[in-house]
Amino acid sequence: MTTHASQEGAKIKYVYPFGADFPPPPLDVNLLGGKGKGLAEMATLGLPIPPGFIITTEACNTYRKNEHHYPSGLEERIVESMKQLEEKMGKEFGSETNPLLVSVRSGAPASMPGMMDTVLNLGLNDRSVLGFAEQTHNEQLAYDSYRRLIAMYADIVKGVDRAHFEEAFHVLKMQEAVENDYDLSINGLKEACSLFKQIYRQNVGKDFPQDAYEQLFEAIAAVFESWDGERATLYRQINHIPDEWGTAVNVQIMVFGNKNMHSATGVGFTRDPATGENQFYGEFLLDAQGEEVVAGIRTPHPINKYQKQVTKSELESLEELMPEVYQELLTTITLLEKHFNDMQDIEFTIDDGKLYMLQTRTGKRTGFAAVRMAVEMLEAGLIDEKTALLRIQPEQLSQLLAPIFDTKVKKAAQDKMVGKGLNAGPGAASGKAAFSADKAVEFKKQGQDCILIRKEANPDDYPGIVSSEGILTVRGGSTSHAAVVARGMGKPCVVGCGVLNLNESAKTISANGLTIHEGDSISIDGSTGEVFFCCMESSPSEVVQVVLTKTKKPEESFIYQQYKKIMDMADHYRTLHVRTNADTPQDSTAARAFGAEGIGLCRTEHMFMDVNRLNDVRRLFFSTNPEERKHSIDLLLPHQKEDFIGIFRAMQGLPVTIRLLDPPLHEFMPHGNDELETLARSMGISLDRLLEIRASLEERNPMLGHRGCRLGITYPELTEMQTQAILEAALIVTKEGLHVHPEIMIPLVGITNELIHQKAIIEATAKRLFEKHNFKVPYTIGTMIELPRAALIAGQIAKDVSFFSFGTNDLTQTVFGISRDDSAKFVPTYVKGIPNPLEKGELIHILNDDPFQVLDREGVGAIMRLAVDSGRRANPSLECGICGEHGGESSSVEFCHQIGLNYVSCSPYRIPVARLAAAQAVIK
Amino acid sequence: MTTHASQEGAKIKYVYPFGADFPPPPLDVNLLGGKGKGLAEMATLGLPIPPGFIITTEACNTYRKNEHHYPSGLEERIVESMKQLEEKMGKEFGSETNPLLVSVRSGAPASMPGMMDTVLNLGLNDRSVLGFAEQTHNEQLAYDSYRRLIAMYADIVKGVDRAHFEEAFHVLKMQEAVENDYDLSINGLKEACSLFKQIYRQNVGKDFPQDAYEQLFEAIAAVFESWDGERATLYRQINHIPDEWGTAVNVQIMVFGNKNMHSATGVGFTRDPATGENQFYGEFLLDAQGEEVVAGIRTPHPINKYQKQVTKSELESLEELMPEVYQELLTTITLLEKHFNDMQDIEFTIDDGKLYMLQTRTGKRTGFAAVRMAVEMLEAGLIDEKTALLRIQPEQLSQLLAPIFDTKVKKAAQDKMVGKGLNAGPGAASGKAAFSADKAVEFKKQGQDCILIRKEANPDDYPGIVSSEGILTVRGGSTSHAAVVARGMGKPCVVGCGVLNLNESAKTISANGLTIHEGDSISIDGSTGEVFFCCMESSPSEVVQVVLTKTKKPEESFIYQQYKKIMDMADHYRTLHVRTNADTPQDSTAARAFGAEGIGLCRTEHMFMDVNRLNDVRRLFFSTNPEERKHSIDLLLPHQKEDFIGIFRAMQGLPVTIRLLDPPLHEFMPHGNDELETLARSMGISLDRLLEIRASLEERNPMLGHRGCRLGITYPELTEMQTQAILEAALIVTKEGLHVHPEIMIPLVGITNELIHQKAIIEATAKRLFEKHNFKVPYTIGTMIELPRAALIAGQIAKDVSFFSFGTNDLTQTVFGISRDDSAKFVPTYVKGIPNPLEKGELIHILNDDPFQVLDREGVGAIMRLAVDSGRRANPSLECGICGEHGGESSSVEFCHQIGLNYVSCSPYRIPVARLAAAQAVIK
Repeated sequence: MTTHASQEGAKIKYVYPFGADFPPPPLDVNLLGGKGKGLAEMATLGLPIPPGFIITTEACNTYRKNEHHYPSGLEERIVESMKQLEEKMGKEFGSETNPLLVSVRSGAPASMPGMMDTVLNLGLNDRSVLGFAEQTHNEQLAYDSYRRLIAMYADIVKGVDRAHFEEAFHVLKMQEAVENDYDLSINGLKEACSLFKQIYRQNVGKDFPQDAYEQLFEAIAAVFESWDGERATLYRQINHIPDEWGTAVNVQIMVFGNKNMHSATGVGFTRDPATGENQFYGEFLLDAQGEEVVAGIRTPHPINKYQKQVTKSELESLEELMPEVYQELLTTITLLEKHFNDMQDIEFTIDDGKLYMLQTRTGKRTGFAAVRMAVEMLEAGLIDEKTALLRIQPEQLSQLLAPIFDTKVKKAAQDKMVGKGLNAGPGAASGKAAFSADKAVEFKKQGQDCILIRKEANPDDYPGIVSSEGILTVRGGSTSHAAVVARGMGKPCVVGCGVLNLNESAKTISANGLTIHEGDSISIDGSTGEVFFCCMESSPSEVVQVVLTKTKKPEESFIYQQYKKIMDMADHYRTLHVRTNADTPQDSTAARAFGAEGIGLCRTEHMFMDVNRLNDVRRLFFSTNPEERKHSIDLLLPHQKEDFIGIFRAMQGLPVTIRLLDPPLHEFMPHGNDELETLARSMGISLDRLLEIRASLEERNPMLGHRGCRLGITYPELTEMQTQAILEAALIVTKEGLHVHPEIMIPLVGITNELIHQKAIIEATAKRLFEKHNFKVPYTIGTMIELPRAALIAGQIAKDVSFFSFGTNDLTQTVFGISRDDSAKFVPTYVKGIPNPLEKGELIHILNDDPFQVLDREGVGAIMRLAVDSGRRANPSLECGICGEHGGESSSVEFCHQIGLNYVSCSPYRIPVARLAAAQAVIK
Repeated sequence: MTTHASQEGAKIKYVYPFGADFPPPPLDVNLLGGKGKGLAEMATLGLPIPPGFIITTEACNTYRKNEHHYPSGLEERIVESMKQLEEKMGKEFGSETNPLLVSVRSGAPASMPGMMDTVLNLGLNDRSVLGFAEQTHNEQLAYDSYRRLIAMYADIVKGVDRAHFEEAFHVLKMQEAVENDYDLSINGLKEACSLFKQIYRQNVGKDFPQDAYEQLFEAIAAVFESWDGERATLYRQINHIPDEWGTAVNVQIMVFGNKNMHSATGVGFTRDPATGENQFYGEFLLDAQGEEVVAGIRTPHPINKYQKQVTKSELESLEELMPEVYQELLTTITLLEKHFNDMQDIEFTIDDGKLYMLQTRTGKRTGFAAVRMAVEMLEAGLIDEKTALLRIQPEQLSQLLAPIFDTKVKKAAQDKMVGKGLNAGPGAASGKAAFSADKAVEFKKQGQDCILIRKEANPDDYPGIVSSEGILTVRGGSTSHAAVVARGMGKPCVVGCGVLNLNESAKTISANGLTIHEGDSISIDGSTGEVFFCCMESSPSEVVQVVLTKTKKPEESFIYQQYKKIMDMADHYRTLHVRTNADTPQDSTAARAFGAEGIGLCRTEHMFMDVNRLNDVRRLFFSTNPEERKHSIDLLLPHQKEDFIGIFRAMQGLPVTIRLLDPPLHEFMPHGNDELETLARSMGISLDRLLEIRASLEERNPMLGHRGCRLGITYPELTEMQTQAILEAALIVTKEGLHVHPEIMIPLVGITNELIHQKAIIEATAKRLFEKHNFKVPYTIGTMIELPRAALIAGQIAKDVSFFSFGTNDLTQTVFGISRDDSAKFVPTYVKGIPNPLEKGELIHILNDDPFQVLDREGVGAIMRLAVDSGRRANPSLECGICGEHGGESSSVEFCHQIGLNYVSCSPYRIPVARLAAAQAVIK
């Protein structure tokens, strides 16, 4: 029996040792888990890592099937591997004089931070603690490690509430009147060990095990068991991780950066993650553990002279303190970067003068660094073009376009930093606080920069947004009106900054104990969401200075050269076209500078919102008299025409998709006495009557209300006028010699007959105009797909249109049943995580991303794919694009490429992002 | 060539004559069109119809392909058929002395009312008009017919605006100072003919054709052409009628009911359409045309002595006036009913003593008549069970349940009828006008009936709705809150009665020049939507008296016996289960009486809305203090438990699906100073602070806001409490000896992890309770499918639940992107029709039905089917049901059967409708 079982165990290789002298295990993440694979890979490179062994996921799964018993042979293999470790380290597990200590860590194939059970310092007992103290000449380290082991073991292996131990330790600290754990005296630590063992006995009913192997086997079993714990199971369910994967277990010798002054712990990057410069960049603490570096209580030392210079640190660098170890580290990281072919983020420990690498992973970097590293590695022949393009997260490009606050500037203003909202529009802005659009316009007229601050922005604020340097709102999400408009104009924007207390009547805003008044200085960093109650200087980014403002020559900007190299390569690879959402000639011009190949969405409502026209628009909707309606329409026509002429000219013959009036009716409602009185006077009716009409137009759920083509159907004169404005503008610009091809887009279609009705009006109007002017311009008619029903009947709709444009903002609203305007109440919590009902203190992530930022592929994406497929089946020449905010978000752009859209359309400043994302989609 | 062409024409039989001596044509509606087929079918029965012939749709289509020329041979066939008609009638087409007149009417395979071009009196010219006058001894008839021909022909064939003729005729009437067209003298009519011919010449450039065959051929060609007219094409596009169908053309001899006192025109039903009694029922006018009967200017005569008695008419009946013709008519209609095997609605004309049948079609009938006819025809062996069940429109059954106003009662109150709203909840109600829920409660306490009148109802009004006899709102659609609740309780309800001017501060309501005050009498008829400013007596229907109030014994009610027979048969055939939406023990009991097989939707929010509990609910949502929340929850628990105990007892072991709290947060907001102060006081905070919190909870689009499981996630204590209340109630009732099986339903799930989170809470709570009470009850967990995303990821969700329940109210909102609350602004217009942009005065129907009433199969239905299919694939034992308002609407029930749902759930009074519809779905 035993022989047979051993043979079975022998057949399946449950244990893989790793370290300098061991043969490399198969680098299979499913077998070794993520952590194990990383350590094993460093070992194969011959790097100095604390050696150890991996117990595979297969062992875990056999254990689970085997009524929670060790698979036969596993114990023997573990003992065998421990012997190898002992031999290698010249120490003995559980020895009284020369003990070997190990850690046991879980390591599943997928990251599962909620269940990462770890037991450190295994191998310590009442006797070996003495040996360890002697071995290390460090009693403090020895007893501190022992008391930690007892508490951790009790918690993880025996399920004892860790609070018992924390309380006891707290009492000891009070007795010695010390504040920090590490301040406790050696006697105090000895007392702690003794107390902890008592607590253990009381709760477990047995003594804390003195046998090292008992500790080890039980710890490993506990990690196996933790895979099927309630919280881990729920975590996997939530994150769609299969139950059958199981977890690996890593057993590794302990190393100590807190042993003495020849010991240290540090972190670093193989290149400068902020600038991308090819210089080792890092910091460390002498005589410290990893946690202390992260906690930031002590000031870390610079890793080398470069770093010392950059940070202007006066502390000695590792290069100076331990030149030999530093050289070994430098060699190591150079090797790592070469092996992984990318900048690495590393962790290391120096244990009594000996270097150990604890981790390596690809390092995070700023947009500037990403671009520089990609270009420089490409030029150095380290990577090819495709890899270079993949190295930059498209979103990072917006950093290159955003105005900036220097780190210096920010540091100086730190005490004025009052809160953080959502970083909705990247860039930095500073100016006088304006609490209304009117005030912003007034400041602008006086030539003064201002920040528009609103509880939440609405379309009435448009002139205010135009007039301000940046926008700040107390409520709203990153796709709220303010954010969308701001990003579209490349203006910095912070939204949903709930800590701000805006008192509109007193005209003050308070937070964090500070209060400012209207007209006082305020600054916002739209890249980070920070709000400062002071004036701070910002500057347009270098790339913008070259591309848009032309205040800098291309050859003067290093970063522009790199940006251009990347953009040119991206254009070479991508097949997806990139258009822009632009409503004005200014936006159109900017968009072309950033590489737009046309306008994918020209919203006409912003033209209506102009303060000079709004009253006429309102008369149209408020009047029940056809004559008066006609009159208001006639007043609007010439303005609309002028707008379109400007846009057609700016786009120089590129295609322009114009959406007919779309927003909810309530956005046109007059607010405040002035507006009400103006409207009543111009209509010749009483204020009471006007209020009555307004009440009749009010809606409970305006997003699901009387808007889009529903308005065009109820007020057909509107569709007729807009068609006339578009086509007459096209006639005029065509006669100027440009090729103009307007694409008229009908919004919010959900029913085939809505489309047919609107199409009939457009075609009849076109026929009339072409006859009248005896001249034709080519035009096409298309529709937004922004309602689930439109997507579901796409096959029907497609027969009657030339193009589909997915309005994924609205589509996301209706597919999820979540209002963009109200989503801030729970969507951020869904993403940030909500408390796990089964495990206090843990979080469950209901959503990985805000679906208004990153296109939801499972739901919204599924219905888009359905619409594209059935639309193209019905009409093979159908053009499909996207014009929601997602058109400028990289993951969404990738998805658009995958489902075969012809183009994405995004705001001007997002065009570089979309261009790169489109190229990456091809390369991937 | 000609020979060849004739042969071709001969091969395809373009023309089918119909009439007594002609062989019957193939009764193919696609070939003959709808009108042609009906006439041909009567002819095959040997019934007296004006003979004629049908030019087939094939002829039309060949004409259209043939560059708009007659197919070869067609002219010959028409002339041939005319010769046969002449021979048969002993008259000659175009003859000066004995002219034959014919009509030309279009008749497409599908009804296309917008394009039914008709030309009457063809064959008249300057000479034959004399012969016609002599033939009929009726100069007036002759010239009136001639002038009509000229105008109609000019319009239809030559496209001359008919207004020219109308103006001229108007001038002639002014000259003679007469008001009605038929008052014009013979000379005036002659003058009209002469003037009309001049107008024709001026507009057409030629004389009005004197050649009868020219008239005929051109009229037929014009009907062919009209198929491709702009308006017909658009109509077909909108109604999904294929272009290639083409129209047939019917040529038929003219008959005249207005020839003399031996002539008459009438309409009738083969049985009484109001009561279903087996008696010929009809009326007629002597010396009159069809239009006059319809116009209702002259009082019609009863058709027979039965009718004379029923209507208490003093006019002579046809039976008395023309006994022989009456006998022939009676024989004819008996034959028709037998042939079509159903009650017929007929039109006839008596031309100088000779009877002609002009139309027969299946007759419309009331619910009472439908039931009686079905049962009596079944008993007489005329039809089988399946046919009997199909004979009743399920919706008609609600007539049998609704309280009623007698016709007499209504007639007496006609001058107090002030307006009409949407007939949202059938039945009649009368009482004192109450303008607030409080007032309604007060009236109820005083023992006085009242009608609750609100601008629009919201959940706060629930106690008011309970306390009133009926509900009337100024705004809102037929699935608005008021309507849903009212129908659920079987209360009459009229909503969206926009003509009412409700002045809440003055406490008056005005319309149609009348004003009443609070406390004055008002009556509403929820079956018709009528509103009366007076008191009217109503009574519960007989069926309700037997089934529910038990105030009548079954054997005393003739209609109940018939109702029961139908219901029993329906239950025998149907496979779909029928459950009820019920929130109280009272509703549950009523539902069981109407045949519910369980509760498909028990809403828990109504329990929260109880005035005595609402303040605690509000404290829960307003408090940021966990202690206070817990306290409010603890106060709610016993009430919830009591509610569930009552419902479980009432349902006697039938399954009960309970939905966790669902409505938008805003429905719990306090309104008015009293409520605000009570809440502030109970929370110990200032009114200002309370208003601040309220503002922070307000939503722009509450339907897409913080509700459903989103609340259960943000306030997990709520889900826990509701689970506890359900399971503890189940424990108690189980111990009483009933089998209780609660089905806990999680609302508004859109993301898998929402479901998993809520499920974890429910299961943990259940585990805790079962351990505590040492007793278990079986329960299952399911989810609403009421968001498009839930339907799209149904395959994922299904793995974690036992059942799906489609919440089609919400699903319709999000699939269409239309808010129920705001839909009244445009959906009724979509259904009623919007002006055709290409043709003034015509309407385009954007929707056939309000999707909140009749389930939209194309969009909502498609996504439901997708969810059922993918859900069942993932979980074959998944139960699927529907609990939206559609569960009680017959077409929707049919669809639910088709996609394989297990049950529908509807309000108690809709259960009979659902039972019958479910049976019909099987039979169909």
